[in-house]
Amino acid sequence: MKATIIAVGTELLMGKTVNTNSTYLSKELNDLGIDVLYHKVVGDNPKRLEELLLQSMKETDLIITTGGLGPTQDDLTKEVIGKAFGKTLHMNEGVLQDLKAFFKKIDREMTDNNVRQAYFPESARIIPNDKGTAPGFILENENNICISLPGPPREMKAMYQAEIKNILNSYSQDTIVSQYVNLFGIGESSAEDMVKDLISEQSDPSIAIYAGNGVISFRLTTKAKSEDEGYEIIKPIKDEMAKRFGQLVFSYDSTDFVKVFVENLIKKSLTISTAESCTGGLIAKMITDVSGASSIFERGYITYSNAAKADELNVSEETLKKYGAVSEETALEMVEGLYNKTKSNICISVTGIAGPNGGSKEKPVGLVYVGYAVDGDFKVKKLNLTGDRERIRRLTAFSSLDLIRKRM
Amino acid sequence: MKATIIAVGTELLMGKTVNTNSTYLSKELNDLGIDVLYHKVVGDNPKRLEELLLQSMKETDLIITTGGLGPTQDDLTKEVIGKAFGKTLHMNEGVLQDLKAFFKKIDREMTDNNVRQAYFPESARIIPNDKGTAPGFILENENNICISLPGPPREMKAMYQAEIKNILNSYSQDTIVSQYVNLFGIGESSAEDMVKDLISEQSDPSIAIYAGNGVISFRLTTKAKSEDEGYEIIKPIKDEMAKRFGQLVFSYDSTDFVKVFVENLIKKSLTISTAESCTGGLIAKMITDVSGASSIFERGYITYSNAAKADELNVSEETLKKYGAVSEETALEMVEGLYNKTKSNICISVTGIAGPNGGSKEKPVGLVYVGYAVDGDFKVKKLNLTGDRERIRRLTAFSSLDLIRKRM
Repeated sequence: MKATIIAVGTELLMGKTVNTNSTYLSKELNDLGIDVLYHKVVGDNPKRLEELLLQSMKETDLIITTGGLGPTQDDLTKEVIGKAFGKTLHMNEGVLQDLKAFFKKIDREMTDNNVRQAYFPESARIIPNDKGTAPGFILENENNICISLPGPPREMKAMYQAEIKNILNSYSQDTIVSQYVNLFGIGESSAEDMVKDLISEQSDPSIAIYAGNGVISFRLTTKAKSEDEGYEIIKPIKDEMAKRFGQLVFSYDSTDFVKVFVENLIKKSLTISTAESCTGGLIAKMITDVSGASSIFERGYITYSNAAKADELNVSEETLKKYGAVSEETALEMVEGLYNKTKSNICISVTGIAGPNGGSKEKPVGLVYVGYAVDGDFKVKKLNLTGDRERIRRLTAFSSLDLIRKRM
Repeated sequence: MKATIIAVGTELLMGKTVNTNSTYLSKELNDLGIDVLYHKVVGDNPKRLEELLLQSMKETDLIITTGGLGPTQDDLTKEVIGKAFGKTLHMNEGVLQDLKAFFKKIDREMTDNNVRQAYFPESARIIPNDKGTAPGFILENENNICISLPGPPREMKAMYQAEIKNILNSYSQDTIVSQYVNLFGIGESSAEDMVKDLISEQSDPSIAIYAGNGVISFRLTTKAKSEDEGYEIIKPIKDEMAKRFGQLVFSYDSTDFVKVFVENLIKKSLTISTAESCTGGLIAKMITDVSGASSIFERGYITYSNAAKADELNVSEETLKKYGAVSEETALEMVEGLYNKTKSNICISVTGIAGPNGGSKEKPVGLVYVGYAVDGDFKVKKLNLTGDRERIRRLTAFSSLDLIRKRM
C-alpha cells in the first residue's frame, strides 16, 4: 500500500504549529510496511483541499488526513472528503448522543457548531475519539481508502493506536512484525558500518535505522502468517546485532534512553544523587522527568560558583585554585563530597565549559569532566564535546547516565 | 506573492525527522506578507519530485525547497529543478575553490561526490553556506522563482537570515514591517478576547496571534515605503495593546520568555538561587540554558526527599510532619532556608505534586506551592495546575519566573 498524509490547517501554513502528526503517522505506517510517498499541508480552504485530495487519490491508494474536524466554521474536511467520494453528509445519531452526554458532563451548552460534529459522509465508518469531541471516520471506494483524524496530537495518536493500526493491518493478508535494537553511545554512521553486511546481504527482515536524542535504533520488520512466526524470522538478525553491539544495546523496546535507565534504577531500588555545574540541573531534570523517580532520586546540587562547590560538596579551595573548577580533580572531589553527604548508590558530578563563552586554549568549550560512583567507587571521565551550548549540555547529561549504565 | 514550501528527503517520509524547516520558513514568509498555500514533502525520488515541482509551479509563483543538496547519490534536487527550468548543470568554479579550501581546512580528502556539490543549473544565483558544504541557489523565469536551500536547519536558517530575507523583500515595492507584543501569564483565547475589537475593526497593520511555550505573541505587520513609516503605522495599535495588557507584556522583540528574564537579571547584576522539589531541576536548567547565566545563577538545590529539605534548607521536621512536604508552610521555609544560605537577590522554592501518581483528595495532582523572594522579602503562591506531568512541571517553572518578573 502507498500512502499520502495530508494535514489540514492554516495554523501550519502560518508557522504557528509544527506538523508532528505527519512524522508520527509516517513512522507508524512504515512499521506496518506501508510506503509513505508524500506529506502535504493545506489551509482551511475547501477548493485547495479538494484539488489536493483528488490529486492524491490518483497518486496513492491510502490517504490519511489530520485536522479540520473541529466545530468551527473553517473546519471543512468532512464536507470536502465526502464530496470527493460522492457522498453527502448525514447526521449520525450515535455521535450526537455522545456529544450531548459530553457537554452535559462538562456542564456547557452545546452550540449549533457542535451539532455539526455529528454529521458524517454517508457510509463512513466512525472512529470514536475518547479524548476530544471530534470523532474520525473512514471512507472507501474501489481505489482508495481515506482515513480522517482530528488534529490535536493527543487525540490523533490515541485513535491511531486504539483503532487505525488494527484496521490497516487487516487490509494485509500478513501480519507485520517489527522489533527494535536500541543503542546508546555510538554515532549513526559508525553503527551502520558495524552491520553494513547484514543490511546489504538480506532483505527479510528489512532493516531501517533511526537516530534521535543520542539513540540509534535499528528497526527490523517482517511479514509473517503470525506474530510468533514473525519473531522467528527476525530472531537471527536481532541476535547477531545484539552480539555485535554488545554493551551499546540498552533496550529492545523503548527508545527512551533516560526512561529505561530510571526504570531500571526503580526496579533495583538504587538511589541516585547529582552535583552539576555546567549542566545546571539538566541531569536531575531528565531523571525526574520520569514518573516514579521520586522513589530513587535523593537530592541534587547545582553548584555553579566555586563557593557553592566548596560549601555544598566540600571541594577544597586548594584544588579549585591549583587545578581550576573544570578539572579532573574538582570533578572527583565533587562526587566524593556528594557521596559523603547522600550515601546514594549512584552519584554523578559534572563540571565543564558549555560555552559559547568561557573557553580558553587549555580548556576549550566542550571540555567536560564527569565524576561518577557506584556504591562509593569513584571514577572520572574526560569528555571533549563539540557543538553549541545546548548540544554540549545534552551530550554531557546523556553521557553521564551512560557511564553509570555501563558500570552496572 | 503565493508560496509552496517543498521539503525533500526520504527521512521525513520515514518519520525519522520532523519537518521544522517548513514551519520556520512559513513564519518568516508570513512576516514578509507572503502567503504560504502549501507544504509538500517528497522523498529522494527524481520522478516524483519533478511532478510535484511542475504542479507547484502552476499553483504558486514562489517555491522554496529544503534538503536534497548534499553530496550523496540520492540528493538530486539540483538536477530536477534545473530540468524544470530548462537548465543543465554547470560547474561553478568559485564554489569548487571554496569546497577545496574547506576540505583542506578540515584535512579530509575531497571525493567525486563532493565535486558534484559545485555543479549548479545554468544562470542560477548561488547562495553561500557558511555553516556547511552545500550552497543554495535561486532560479527564475517569467512566472516562477525557485529558491533551493540545504536541509540541515542550522544551515538553512542562517542562509535565510543572511540572504534570502532581503532578496524576497526586494521583490516587493514596499517594505514589510513586523513588530511583536509578547505576553506571559494569559491564555490564547483570553488574550484574543481582550483585543477582539482591535482585531476585527482594522486591517492595517494586520494582527496575527501565535502561542507556544506559554507565550502569546501578537504580530503586527504592515506594508510601507520605509521602515520608519511602517513603525508609525503600527505604533497606535501597539501602544493600545501595551495599555490593555499592561504587566502581561514581557517583551516587544524576543519571544523567548526565559531568555528575556535571565538577560534582564544579568543586566541588573541580580543573583538567583533555586530550591526545587517537584520540578526536579527544571527551573535551574531553564535559567542555565541561557548563555551568560553563570554570572547570576548562584546555586540550586533539588530536595526531593524530606531529609534533603531538612538538611539543605533547614525546613523543620515539625512543619513537614504537620503540614506535609507539599504545603504553603514548607514552600515558605524552603525559600527562607535558601535565602539564609545564599543571600541571592532572588530566591525561588517549589514543592508540589507533578503526578501522575502521588495525588490525594486534599492534595491533588497539579497542586503546587511556589515560594519566592526578592531581597529577602518572602511570599508564597499556590497554583492549581492541570495536565500531565510534563505540563505541570513546565507551567510551574514558567510561573515561578513570572511571579518574580511581576514583583520586580
